[in-house]
Amino acid sequence: MKDYLDKDPWKIVENSLHTDYNEVSESIASLGNGRLGGRGNFEERFNGPSLQGNYIAGVYYPDKTKVGWWKNGYPEYFAKVINSVNWIGMDVWIDGEDFELFPDQIKEFRAELDMKEGILRRTTVAELPNGKQIKIESERFYSMVDKDNAYLKYSLTPLNFSGEVCIAPYLDFNVINRDSNYEEGFWKRNDEGIDQRWGYVYSQTKKTAYHVLAGMKINTMLNGQSIALDYDAVKQNSFVEYQPKLKLNEGETFTIEKYCCICSSLYHEVSTLSESCQSQLEQSFEEGFEKAKIKHINKWDSIWNDCDISINGDVSAQQGIRFNIFQLYQTYNGDDARLNIGPKGFTGEKYGGVTYWDTEAYCLPFYLSTTDQSVAKNLLIYRYRHLQKAIENATKLGFSHGAALYPMVTMNGEECHNEWEITFEEIHRNGAIAYAIYDYIRYTGDNEHLKDYGLEVLIAISRFWRQRVNWSEPKQKFVILGVTGPNEYENNVNNNWYTNYIACWCMQYTMEAIAYVEQSHPEAYKNLCEKLDFNAKYESTRWQEIIDSMYLPSDKERAVFLQQDGFLDKNLMPAKNIPADEYPIHQNWSWDRILRSCFIKQADVLQGLYFFEDHFDKETIKRNFNFYEPLTVHESSLSPCVHAILAAKIGNYPKAYEMYLRTARLDLDDYNNDTKDGLHITSMAGTWMSVIKGFGGMRIINDTLSFDPFIPENWSSYSFKIKFRSHTLKLIVSHEGVNILNLSDEKIEILLKGQKQSIFPKEVQTIS
Amino acid sequence: MKDYLDKDPWKIVENSLHTDYNEVSESIASLGNGRLGGRGNFEERFNGPSLQGNYIAGVYYPDKTKVGWWKNGYPEYFAKVINSVNWIGMDVWIDGEDFELFPDQIKEFRAELDMKEGILRRTTVAELPNGKQIKIESERFYSMVDKDNAYLKYSLTPLNFSGEVCIAPYLDFNVINRDSNYEEGFWKRNDEGIDQRWGYVYSQTKKTAYHVLAGMKINTMLNGQSIALDYDAVKQNSFVEYQPKLKLNEGETFTIEKYCCICSSLYHEVSTLSESCQSQLEQSFEEGFEKAKIKHINKWDSIWNDCDISINGDVSAQQGIRFNIFQLYQTYNGDDARLNIGPKGFTGEKYGGVTYWDTEAYCLPFYLSTTDQSVAKNLLIYRYRHLQKAIENATKLGFSHGAALYPMVTMNGEECHNEWEITFEEIHRNGAIAYAIYDYIRYTGDNEHLKDYGLEVLIAISRFWRQRVNWSEPKQKFVILGVTGPNEYENNVNNNWYTNYIACWCMQYTMEAIAYVEQSHPEAYKNLCEKLDFNAKYESTRWQEIIDSMYLPSDKERAVFLQQDGFLDKNLMPAKNIPADEYPIHQNWSWDRILRSCFIKQADVLQGLYFFEDHFDKETIKRNFNFYEPLTVHESSLSPCVHAILAAKIGNYPKAYEMYLRTARLDLDDYNNDTKDGLHITSMAGTWMSVIKGFGGMRIINDTLSFDPFIPENWSSYSFKIKFRSHTLKLIVSHEGVNILNLSDEKIEILLKGQKQSIFPKEVQTIS
Repeated sequence: MKDYLDKDPWKIVENSLHTDYNEVSESIASLGNGRLGGRGNFEERFNGPSLQGNYIAGVYYPDKTKVGWWKNGYPEYFAKVINSVNWIGMDVWIDGEDFELFPDQIKEFRAELDMKEGILRRTTVAELPNGKQIKIESERFYSMVDKDNAYLKYSLTPLNFSGEVCIAPYLDFNVINRDSNYEEGFWKRNDEGIDQRWGYVYSQTKKTAYHVLAGMKINTMLNGQSIALDYDAVKQNSFVEYQPKLKLNEGETFTIEKYCCICSSLYHEVSTLSESCQSQLEQSFEEGFEKAKIKHINKWDSIWNDCDISINGDVSAQQGIRFNIFQLYQTYNGDDARLNIGPKGFTGEKYGGVTYWDTEAYCLPFYLSTTDQSVAKNLLIYRYRHLQKAIENATKLGFSHGAALYPMVTMNGEECHNEWEITFEEIHRNGAIAYAIYDYIRYTGDNEHLKDYGLEVLIAISRFWRQRVNWSEPKQKFVILGVTGPNEYENNVNNNWYTNYIACWCMQYTMEAIAYVEQSHPEAYKNLCEKLDFNAKYESTRWQEIIDSMYLPSDKERAVFLQQDGFLDKNLMPAKNIPADEYPIHQNWSWDRILRSCFIKQADVLQGLYFFEDHFDKETIKRNFNFYEPLTVHESSLSPCVHAILAAKIGNYPKAYEMYLRTARLDLDDYNNDTKDGLHITSMAGTWMSVIKGFGGMRIINDTLSFDPFIPENWSSYSFKIKFRSHTLKLIVSHEGVNILNLSDEKIEILLKGQKQSIFPKEVQTIS
Repeated sequence: MKDYLDKDPWKIVENSLHTDYNEVSESIASLGNGRLGGRGNFEERFNGPSLQGNYIAGVYYPDKTKVGWWKNGYPEYFAKVINSVNWIGMDVWIDGEDFELFPDQIKEFRAELDMKEGILRRTTVAELPNGKQIKIESERFYSMVDKDNAYLKYSLTPLNFSGEVCIAPYLDFNVINRDSNYEEGFWKRNDEGIDQRWGYVYSQTKKTAYHVLAGMKINTMLNGQSIALDYDAVKQNSFVEYQPKLKLNEGETFTIEKYCCICSSLYHEVSTLSESCQSQLEQSFEEGFEKAKIKHINKWDSIWNDCDISINGDVSAQQGIRFNIFQLYQTYNGDDARLNIGPKGFTGEKYGGVTYWDTEAYCLPFYLSTTDQSVAKNLLIYRYRHLQKAIENATKLGFSHGAALYPMVTMNGEECHNEWEITFEEIHRNGAIAYAIYDYIRYTGDNEHLKDYGLEVLIAISRFWRQRVNWSEPKQKFVILGVTGPNEYENNVNNNWYTNYIACWCMQYTMEAIAYVEQSHPEAYKNLCEKLDFNAKYESTRWQEIIDSMYLPSDKERAVFLQQDGFLDKNLMPAKNIPADEYPIHQNWSWDRILRSCFIKQADVLQGLYFFEDHFDKETIKRNFNFYEPLTVHESSLSPCVHAILAAKIGNYPKAYEMYLRTARLDLDDYNNDTKDGLHITSMAGTWMSVIKGFGGMRIINDTLSFDPFIPENWSSYSFKIKFRSHTLKLIVSHEGVNILNLSDEKIEILLKGQKQSIFPKEVQTIS
């Protein structure tokens, strides 16, 4: 737990440099526009802990797998999010001497991430060993409008001397990944060049051959006015730099506006990369820094207008939720079905890959409710496009006949992960992918999705489950052996309740989907059956047999579902017995001890009760919650949100609020002591869910939007907007009641605390 | 399965070069003398598949661990057996042209490993592209008498031309390990030098700083007579070479005798390494090649005299068993308690480390019965010396109060292995280490070992078990969760019967050992209790509670013990259903499929029945054997021997013989398609056990040697010697009966097929 950042509803402010936490601060101050992004590194050379990171969505490198003991079925490579061109860099010389920022030279410091505007600003006053004092101010952003463009303004003022200052903006493609498995570079230099018009560096990834060309233009200014200067333009391998100098009097300010454009072959023909880059640069240069900034701020304005959650009376909670929404929209905008939501977004290297089941289980609902339906659909189409790879993946493990096992971690559909207990056994991920189809259709009513994409995925997943179960003679039931459930603190268990349950549900839903497509689109259905060599009668019969006789472990005495066959053999004790200094246990205990303990990393049985809430009565949910929650250490960032939602559901509001706090400020407070590696992007959607589904009690019940709101005691009110099909609603929840505003043109029928309500357009309806 | 080597009772002969199998042949032709050893590489440069390997016992390198996903508790390094100085190398020039042996130039080829003499010989006739034919003959050995010394004789004869031939013997310390985790070299060059008296290369291992200095002297001969030649002596980094040339007429033979001495800091002061090496070289040079060879052969003669198993009527079986005995004595002589028996000995790099539970479970009985008692004792003292490291290892995992977990793989007592399911979970190894103490004392009667060494180890192991069990509420029994049994095709199972059983046995035996030491050595006992902070009453009570209430899974219906809690949930089918082309399954199936299958890698429940045979009646053993053997794929080299012994026990002689064949020629026939990586040294002791304990039915029953022999149908007779305490017996088993010869001076009472027999000295007793 750290608490060194100022509380502010719209800003994250670090008011003095916390050198030891600098990598945490860099993660938190990350910027991005869905296409480009990077960590909050300083522009000038910095003599302190720092993880350099600038990333490009979709540009990855298949790093050769590192594994102690190879198991058949492991992937050959691990797709890495890769550190790309450093575009923010500024060399500084003062009176001919290299300037490097040393923490102990800093006299004043303020870094501010402005979430409303999507801008990172910093002011630093430093005193050099020779007594000279300088002030540095910087401001930068990735344009949310022109997505190849990034902007930086960097100013230097001598405070107690006059002298010659050189501020030298550079582009540097000599970058490495700290997490490279074999200390290998991932980039191959193509070219670089610089003249008075522009400078560029041009590289391509090894193996995957993504071409990336980054260009820059600069504007030099004295005291806020452009000033024409003659200066050197220097180039080395994969490095170009302008070196403008200016003699400054004490108090005068030398400013560089740095216009950058980073073009990749994902969006541009390789043959026109240079041309595209140069012409975009010309345009942005002509437009100017301030205009570009206004466009960018306006875009953020409209995003906030749709998806802000406003909390009154609790600035800490307010800051937390906005930080999460801000980072989510920086990471993924949903305009490109080739992209997905990496667990670290543009904020670090850790985990690699970009797609985990997090996307389906946690992120989808956020995008469904806050933006256009096409964004959620793109997330589903992403998986549809990976179906053949998922079938290959299952085939590699010994499955056949079109069975698909979606990867645990992926970039292009191929599995990247290489821990047998995860890669081969954490198969419940297949269930989340099926569930996302259901969730999307339930929310949008877009049944046609089944015909075009969904059913094909569902059949492949159900085929997997059918082959993955086996008949147990002693139990006279179907069992699923050797799995890892969502709780990764148990591995290779038998009959994980969640996995067994979702497997049955997948097969059930597939049969429903078949019935729908067969009836409403008989021709399309026939074609699909042929394409998939699908014998509905035979396969459905097998699925039904399994559903009818699946083993679902439970404890009769406690009337709870059992996480796995042997769960009660463990030494059960509440997590609150763990001494505080042993948290997080995954950093302090041996893996042996963790595995054998009863402690649960994240919702497991409860994840199932969250997904399938309407299959169970409230008492059942309550009993299971009260049994499992005390055993849970919440060491996955995905854990607290599910607990918050369920706690709210069963009326345990203090617990719901406690869980919300844990997820909302996870990174801002560095709760799990790992923010330095990057932010927990996907879990940020979970925070949003905690508010909307937890506090707001939002559900879709039979095509109807439903709310069951409560408000934490120490909040005075909170409000949020929801997009639902053609409607947009705004809810304001206070201790007095709920105000509902229908922002669309048509009346909408909703459920509020179980009661039907008609909400008329442009009217505020108050329900106390 | 390969079958390309000639069958011969004393030799392994490859009569034509099998290029594709060359790495297999190199493994099989490995030589060693317990201190030095190496693979059967060719002396000259060879253009074909080859794994260069020369090794020095006890000289290891801690290679930085390679692991995909770090788990707390993993070791930082993996100790590697390291490839050391290449002392066999010979460069050859013919009429000034480099000679390199190309497989397709070979006209005649014969390689012969003479097991009786411990010598590797090769004859090769090659035709060069220019039509010149040459004959190469070589012969080499590591002296079993002077253990730093290695000898090589290398001859070349032009068969159809006259010309100048240079045979250039070299020492080369520019060697690498193929299995280096990060392609790092393990050696640091110190020095090299060469003059007419001797040449040497001198290096030390990085980190561990073992110093190794290898020297050579040579004798040049024409047609078998020494001839004085002037020649160049060349040196480069870590490389020295003599380059003697001779003009030969067609049919004349140029021979080099190469005397090498490889001195390590394990046996010599670093400051005198060079001196020791040079003086040993002078001595061996003076003695001469032929005399050294005779001494070496005589030593082998005496070894064979003690430990040979002779089989009449089955040359294939005869060759197999001798090969195994030969390799065991090449690997480990038992004169140094710092050394142990690596699973690959001096025959390859694979696995690293040298000490596995193989030593205790499989090798100890071989050395107990075939050589001096001090050898087996040294193996126990080796573990005693590692006790503190084993306690540290357990502490790292969260255990306390002097609990010890011996490592899965080690060099110096520290754990090297890094697979959580093995490192943390294959804890039954602790049981084997306790069992070895019991086994040694049972065999030798050396009860004093308990006081001096054994009890301290036993207490630490029992303390581990006590902390490792937990109470299961539903079962109302103690359970052991999350283990891997001997069958490594199941991981992280609960209540592995073997582990639970041996855990109880350890605690029981510890209490018996305490009672013995307390009574017979009260002072020593008191001191030990103080040293270990041991409260006998308290700790023994806890042990007894666990023994009394341990859960031991079984199936009532089949009346068999269960490998683990969920074993019967699996889809049970006999291993013979697996298609032949899918064997070995560990090379052909995904790990996922293997883990979930019912197929057993090696004896698991049956390992327990083998160790504790006298705890169970024959019917119980039979039922369990008949249940588990059909499910067993024997993909560990340690599997068939246990099955052979138990099959013999229950009177299933055909199965015993089938299992014996599988183990006896495992490497000669490359049964598991992995001999190229090195030989399965430790399992070779299992082969010996198959004959002595299986066919011979040898047991120790209440301090009495017991036999219950049978003879496979197609053998005419077999014979072996057994050392037991002060006695040496020879048994000759034929279809007519058993001849027993007491080679010692005193009468011995033995049991033969359960009947007491007195065997008088120097007499042959015939029992039909």
